[in-house]
Formats: sequence, C-alpha cells, structure tokens
Amino acid sequence: MKRRTFLRHSATLAALPLVSGAARRASMFSSSAPLRVNGARLNGWLAKFDSIGRTAGGINRVAYSEADLAGRAFTLDLFREAGFTPRIDSAGNIFGRLEGTDRSLKPILIGSHVDSVTDGGNFDGPVGSFGALEVARSLREQNVRLRHPVDVVVWSNEEGGTIGSKCAIGAMAPADLDKVARSGKTIRDGIGLVGGNVARLSDAVLRKGDIACYMELHIEQGGLLEKAGLQIGVVQGIVGLRWFEVTVTGFSNHAGTTPMDQRQDAMLAAAKFAVAVNEAVRSVPGRTVATVGRMTVTPNTTNVIPGQVVLTVDLRDLDPAKIEQFTGRFEQLGREIGTATATKFAFARTTDSAPAISDPQVLGWVDGAAASLGLTRQRMPSGAGHDAQEIAHVAPMAMIFVPSVGGISHSPREFTKPEDVVHGADVLLNAVIAADRG
Amino acid sequence: MKRRTFLRHSATLAALPLVSGAARRASMFSSSAPLRVNGARLNGWLAKFDSIGRTAGGINRVAYSEADLAGRAFTLDLFREAGFTPRIDSAGNIFGRLEGTDRSLKPILIGSHVDSVTDGGNFDGPVGSFGALEVARSLREQNVRLRHPVDVVVWSNEEGGTIGSKCAIGAMAPADLDKVARSGKTIRDGIGLVGGNVARLSDAVLRKGDIACYMELHIEQGGLLEKAGLQIGVVQGIVGLRWFEVTVTGFSNHAGTTPMDQRQDAMLAAAKFAVAVNEAVRSVPGRTVATVGRMTVTPNTTNVIPGQVVLTVDLRDLDPAKIEQFTGRFEQLGREIGTATATKFAFARTTDSAPAISDPQVLGWVDGAAASLGLTRQRMPSGAGHDAQEIAHVAPMAMIFVPSVGGISHSPREFTKPEDVVHGADVLLNAVIAADRG
Repeated sequence: MKRRTFLRHSATLAALPLVSGAARRASMFSSSAPLRVNGARLNGWLAKFDSIGRTAGGINRVAYSEADLAGRAFTLDLFREAGFTPRIDSAGNIFGRLEGTDRSLKPILIGSHVDSVTDGGNFDGPVGSFGALEVARSLREQNVRLRHPVDVVVWSNEEGGTIGSKCAIGAMAPADLDKVARSGKTIRDGIGLVGGNVARLSDAVLRKGDIACYMELHIEQGGLLEKAGLQIGVVQGIVGLRWFEVTVTGFSNHAGTTPMDQRQDAMLAAAKFAVAVNEAVRSVPGRTVATVGRMTVTPNTTNVIPGQVVLTVDLRDLDPAKIEQFTGRFEQLGREIGTATATKFAFARTTDSAPAISDPQVLGWVDGAAASLGLTRQRMPSGAGHDAQEIAHVAPMAMIFVPSVGGISHSPREFTKPEDVVHGADVLLNAVIAADRG
Repeated sequence: MKRRTFLRHSATLAALPLVSGAARRASMFSSSAPLRVNGARLNGWLAKFDSIGRTAGGINRVAYSEADLAGRAFTLDLFREAGFTPRIDSAGNIFGRLEGTDRSLKPILIGSHVDSVTDGGNFDGPVGSFGALEVARSLREQNVRLRHPVDVVVWSNEEGGTIGSKCAIGAMAPADLDKVARSGKTIRDGIGLVGGNVARLSDAVLRKGDIACYMELHIEQGGLLEKAGLQIGVVQGIVGLRWFEVTVTGFSNHAGTTPMDQRQDAMLAAAKFAVAVNEAVRSVPGRTVATVGRMTVTPNTTNVIPGQVVLTVDLRDLDPAKIEQFTGRFEQLGREIGTATATKFAFARTTDSAPAISDPQVLGWVDGAAASLGLTRQRMPSGAGHDAQEIAHVAPMAMIFVPSVGGISHSPREFTKPEDVVHGADVLLNAVIAADRG
C-alpha cells in the first residue's frame, strides 16, 4: 500500500515499474525499459491461496466443489481489492475490466483458471489467473493507460475439460451439460452453483472479432525449460490430442493347466502393445508423446490368463500429420501383435482435438517482451491442453510458460519458483503493452 | 434296476462288468478283463447336476452358497440311492464307505469335490466325485468284494483353497477360518453351514497310515490330452506354485507435457516385465508356466503417466529347482528393466506351495488300469491344484485326468465328453481293484 501511494503518478508506456529498487533504477536509464509487476504481491496471493482446498493428498479444488467455491470467492476478493468489479458470465467465468482509452477497440483478454485436478498443486491455473490480475493492477497502479480495454478472465472448470472456455466459444453441446464432473455434480448444476446461468449460456459466447487477442500465462507442467536452463517458454501452440481405447480380446483360461504355447493371453498382447507404442514414438525424431495410462484387465485374477484388456493410448503432437502417421502405426502394431498372440485388437477414438497454433503476431509480442526483460527463452509446444486452445477458435492467441520444478504437475509436488512466477507475469505485462501498440 | 437284478451274483476281482453288452461279452473271454462302471448312469447324474447353480454366467456353486448346499444335498441323495449312508466330518467333507473283507486294512480313498468357481462349469469336481461314487456302486452291484474298505469322499470348498482337504490333514490355521470365502461367509460359518463343526475340527484329521492310498479322477483343465489325441492323463504330480506380487514404482506425471525421454513410466516397465517373463519361460524347454494375471495401475487415468503398477506372477513347475531358477530370473529382469526405465521393482511372495509328487506304486496302478482298458494315455503333471496335493502329505496318491474339450475350464464352456468321463471312471475302478491287490 505504502509503495503504491509513493509511486502513483502519470506514466507513459515506458512508465516506472512498481517493483524492486534495482528494477526501478534500471528503468530510469531508458525510456524503453520494460515495466514490471509487483512480484512480491503476486507471490503473496499464491501463498495465501495454497491453504484453500489443501488436503493430505494435495490441492483439491475440483470444479464446483466447496473448495472451488472458496477459491473463487478468494479470487473475486482479489479483483475487488485491485479495484475491479468482477462480473460472472452465464458460464461461470469471472471477468474484470481495466478500461482503455479508445472505446472502439476490443479488449485484450488475459487469464487462466483457479480450479484444480484431484490431488493437484497450487500453480496450475492460479499463476496465470493471479498473474493476469496483477498485470491489470500494475497497469492501473503505474498509470499506464492503454488504448484497448484489458479484460482479466478466470475460466470456470478448466480441469474438467476446459468447460468455461468451451462455453465462451459456443462449443458446449447441451448434452454435455448433464455429464457428471469430478465433484459429483453435473456441469449444469455446477455452472449454476458458481454463479452462471445455463438457460442464458449463449450470452457468454465470444465471437470472432469480439476480442483483440488472448494471452495466457501458465506453468509448463513439463521439464523442458528446467532441463534447458531457460526462464520462459514462448508457446507455439497447443498440441493436438487423440485418445484411443484399445480392446484386446484373448481367451481367459487356467494359469496352471494351459501350456505357454496354447494361450490367447490378452495381458501379454496388451503388454507387447504398450512396449511397441513407446518404441514407435521414440524411434521417430520430434516431440510426439504417447502414453498408455489406463489398463483394465478381465478377470484380473492371479491364476487366470486374462481374456480381455482394455487400455488407453494418449497421443499428442503439434503436427496433425504426425498424429495421423502414428494412428496408422498403432493400428498396424495391433494387427501384428494380435496375429502373433492369437488375440484381437479393436481401436476406438474417444477424443480427438486438433492442434491450436499460436498467432505469429501475438507470439512475437510475447517473445519481444521476454527479450526486453532479458529473459532466456525458447519456442516450444504445449503438451497439455489449456483454455487458450478453445479461445484460439475466435481470437489470435499465444501462451507464456514458466518452468515447473522437476517437470512435475498435477501433483502436490507441483512447484514453480517465485522468481519464475514474476518473470512470467512481467512477460505478460509487457506483451499486453506490445499488443496494445499493435 | 432290472439289469442289476439280472447280474447280481458272487464275483471275483475279474467279475462281470455291469455295462454294455459288448463289454460284458469281452469280459467273458478273459478272466483278467477289466471291469467297467455304469457310464450312462454316471453321465445321467452329471446331466442332472448341471441344473444346480446354473446361471447366465455359468455354474455358480461357490462353497457355502445356496447352490453349494443344493449341490451337496443332491450328492448326499446319490450316496443314499447307491446304498451308502453318508457321513459328514467336522470339516464338512462327505464320506461314504463300501466295507472291505479285511477289517485290519485301511481304506482306499477316492473322490473329489462338487463346489465350483464363480461362473465355472459342471465338470471340475463332479466328474471325480460322482465317478468315485459310481466306482463304489459298481463294485457293490457287481459283487466285487475287496479286502480294503473303499471310502468315497467329497471334499468341501476345494475352489476356495482346498479347505476341506487341508482340514483333513490338519493344515488349517485357526486364523484362516475367519477368512471370507467367495460366498461372502467366513470359512468358519461356512463349515458349520455344510454340516461341519469347527469346534471339533481335529476329529477330521487323517494321519499317515490312516488311509491306504488316495486316487482322484478329474478333468485335465488344460488342452494337452486333446491336442495329443489321448484318452487318459496319468498324473505324475501336482506342480509347485509360487505367486509373486510385484510392485513397480515410477513417477506419475502429465502425459502431454513430459517428454518420452524424461519419464518414469511404471506401466511401460510393467509391460516390459510381463513380456520378459513370458519370453524367459518360453525360452527354456519344459512345462513351466508363468502368468501375469492381475495388474492394478495407479492412477489409471488416460492422460497421466502411471506412477505405480502392482502386478502378479503365477509360476508353476513340477520341479522345485525350476521354480527357484525362474524366481531368480524374474528378480533379475525386474532389476534390469527398473534400471532401463528409471523405475523400481519390489517382489513379494504371496503363495508358495511345494510340488506334490504322485506315488510310483499308485501311479502304476492307474497306468495299468488304463492299459488294461486299452486306453491311450500319457504321464503328465497337473498344472492346477487339487485336493490330492493335500492328501499327498498323509498318503500315497495319484490322479487320473480325462480330456477337457478345447482345454477350457473354470468357464461355462468347460466340457468333457461323456465317453471320456466313462473312461476316467473305468480307470479309477480298475485302479482301485489293483490297489486292493497291492
């Protein structure tokens, strides 16, 4: 508070940053020096937020749960404390606006989410949500007047399938509203619970041209930045994703009396397939990932040769051609292993999402902002899904990644260093300013 | 009845058999011709028994269930109908005696069980139980007086872990009585329910010397006999069995953001292990079998790299040295795969039973009986566990196998041809006579 009072003054786009003395001094030597957020304040919010939904298993703020409601209440208070009157749209997304000087311009949208997975961490979502709010607050505190309005958004139920942002692009099928979310509530009930109104869901829809651009700060959730010793990931896009459910059918029989050469062992076939999928992806250069994450064995009894295994494959790449190529390869492997083990493989695609490619101009603003701050960086895909992939359908977008320690996410061990959180928010701040310049 | 009246006469060990005209005529040409059971009657009992506990999923006569009680009541009636007064021991095992001529001799014990697995078939157990009863009935009907008493036994709860026969050798730990059987009842309650008395369990114990020998007719439950086109399996012993529970610990992480070369994928490691176990066993000549039957994956979610997999290995061989050899090999594979995949393997042995070797003399009687009947046969191990493995601790034993169509067992598709059932009972009949001769 004291610092804010002390520094409040009219500022140009190259205004004095509201951070450390060193940064303040640095900015005095150059009118083009980048602005900086109040990093201590931002990390303070994150630290406080850590107590909401914290259980022995990790952070549990799954959408529509009591802890999610508490997290949203905390977030709404942060908006108000920053001087923004939050608005909840009919999909339950929270918006707060920093007005611009030119009423003809559409808003620059920045934000993320605050809900979590089961037994998750405190950084996936909140870093980008609070980071965006801190950017807007810093702009206001530093009297940086932009031409565009800046809208800060906190999307509802990201972890349940980017529900809030899907609603915001009109991509939510009415039938999907009746699906039961991890909280045990239907999405329909959940949206009502967080202040939305499914009867007026179309009010929440953003159309092409409604927003100038979208930028989202997020933790990497992988270990590439840490391994490369870099500070910022300039996200080229969000990978396409294809999920397969593979049913391997053999023949269930006695584990003691059936000779090894007379078996139709669905477990053996599934195991060979899991190994082959891994080898196939690793044998081709690139960043394709494929994961066998789930395996359901029937009858799953120690002394019975499994008659059926249902397994999943999660396949991702930024290049749709790669996804097609590996789809064919996996199906071929299934046929080959099926023949070799006297089992049958059946493939079903349960999810298919196209890659969302970042807009080159928005990507350039992010990259330029990181460069102006002297931060080390690389261009990289996002292997995880984000609200940005939905908004990409209606607006040019880009994302900013900050390192995840150990590459760990969706885990109580998820952690991003305070200085990296600040770097990310600083990049967002300066990218917003660059976007405003156009 | 008519036929029995017609043929009732005093008979030597080479008495006229009570079966088809052809068999009867054959026996007339040689005083050493084998006897034969009433095969039509035996198969009639099996056909009737098929309706008890039959559900859409298969035969469900799990021990202590209503269907098991109904099956036992049916069996007790068969004993009575055959002229034997059944006795239920304190462990719930059913006994019926055909008296011998020499009161100083211990009984020849023959029998099997009538309980089933969940969704099983009608042949695993009943063939040997009813076969033994038919043997005793045929001996009486054909006025074949043996020196030894012949005791027909129907062991209780075989499928729940050879419980009745374990009690009969005093190998049942008191704590095990409180284990919950598949019927949902404790073994303690179950034994009471079927007419036993756990307070007097020691009364059921058979000691070395209490019985002359034990022979059990059973379906093969595998496909070796059918594949070889043979009629009888002369069982050399029941394989030793070792169960491992293998815990593979990796690190759970995001399936989209974790590059392929930075994973500690417990599923991949478990799959490699399952494949390697199979290859290890198949690369060594012999009849060793090893099965990965159960796999429990954590968190078992499509988009999360599994952090832990718990799997089981069921390892069996007639040779204890082979079991030791593969135990070492599996542990070595775990270490190698653990190193290659940055995961850890921990092995626990959950079951360990030594092989039960058939007595050469009893084996010879079985083999001689099959030979005298002109049946094609081979010596072979039993890959499945049987009550005979328990009784082997207190008496010389051997088993007789008849072919399972398609090698299928523990399945509603379990089937043994009527003529093969008769062959098995004929072998048992003549083996009993040979045993009586000594």
